Amino acid sequence: MKQREMPDSFNALPDPPYYSVIFTSRLSSGDPDQYAAVAERMNQLAVQQPGFLGKTSLRNDEDVGVTVSYWSDAQSIANWREHAEHHIAQEQGRRRFYDEYRLEVCRVERVSRYQRLDASQKESE
Amino acid sequence: MKQREMPDSFNALPDPPYYSVIFTSRLSSGDPDQYAAVAERMNQLAVQQPGFLGKTSLRNDEDVGVTVSYWSDAQSIANWREHAEHHIAQEQGRRRFYDEYRLEVCRVERVSRYQRLDASQKESE
Repeated sequence: MKQREMPDSFNALPDPPYYSVIFTSRLSSGDPDQYAAVAERMNQLAVQQPGFLGKTSLRNDEDVGVTVSYWSDAQSIANWREHAEHHIAQEQGRRRFYDEYRLEVCRVERVSRYQRLDASQKESE
Repeated sequence: MKQREMPDSFNALPDPPYYSVIFTSRLSSGDPDQYAAVAERMNQLAVQQPGFLGKTSLRNDEDVGVTVSYWSDAQSIANWREHAEHHIAQEQGRRRFYDEYRLEVCRVERVSRYQRLDASQKESE
């Protein structure tokens, strides 16, 4: 099932400034099922948070992943960081799921976009 | 050849503030070989630019990719955007390689990191 679509965040973002959180991680080798369950639960919770705008999440074959989540402002990010159930998941992440991660809170200052208007255009060139 | 290592940028970044460029893209279906050649050439050029700090690049099976590049300041990003050969590659990208992309210039304001000190710790719990 090849879904050639951009992440759900792609067209839903406001004009800058807004905020992004770049979470770069390397999973440890154990607990993939429990990791998936906790990640799915955190995803369900995150989308309900005030200020959440969307996310893009990719992982490669070497267990390195990048998740970029988008937020309306820095306070929304701080609120989500202190969310009780998320707090437990963060602790689990350090104890069981991740060998290494880096989390960067960023202010998005400038955006440019491109979208091919006619997908057949390339073929006709 | 399973290389369980973080992207080259992982440990080389200074304390914030620094800058990131989040490039989220969906490749078109044609020209994968030429795309790879141009991407490799741009990678070689980028690492030589003043202010370049590192990058993380991932792509999934649906041709959606995220490349996060890191820079010391906004001026370095602007200089690389106007680099002559990069300019040509950008135009090629729109004409031949990408169906869609979004490029976000971000000021990284806050960073937190985690690294497992003892990789065997998890096993012994």
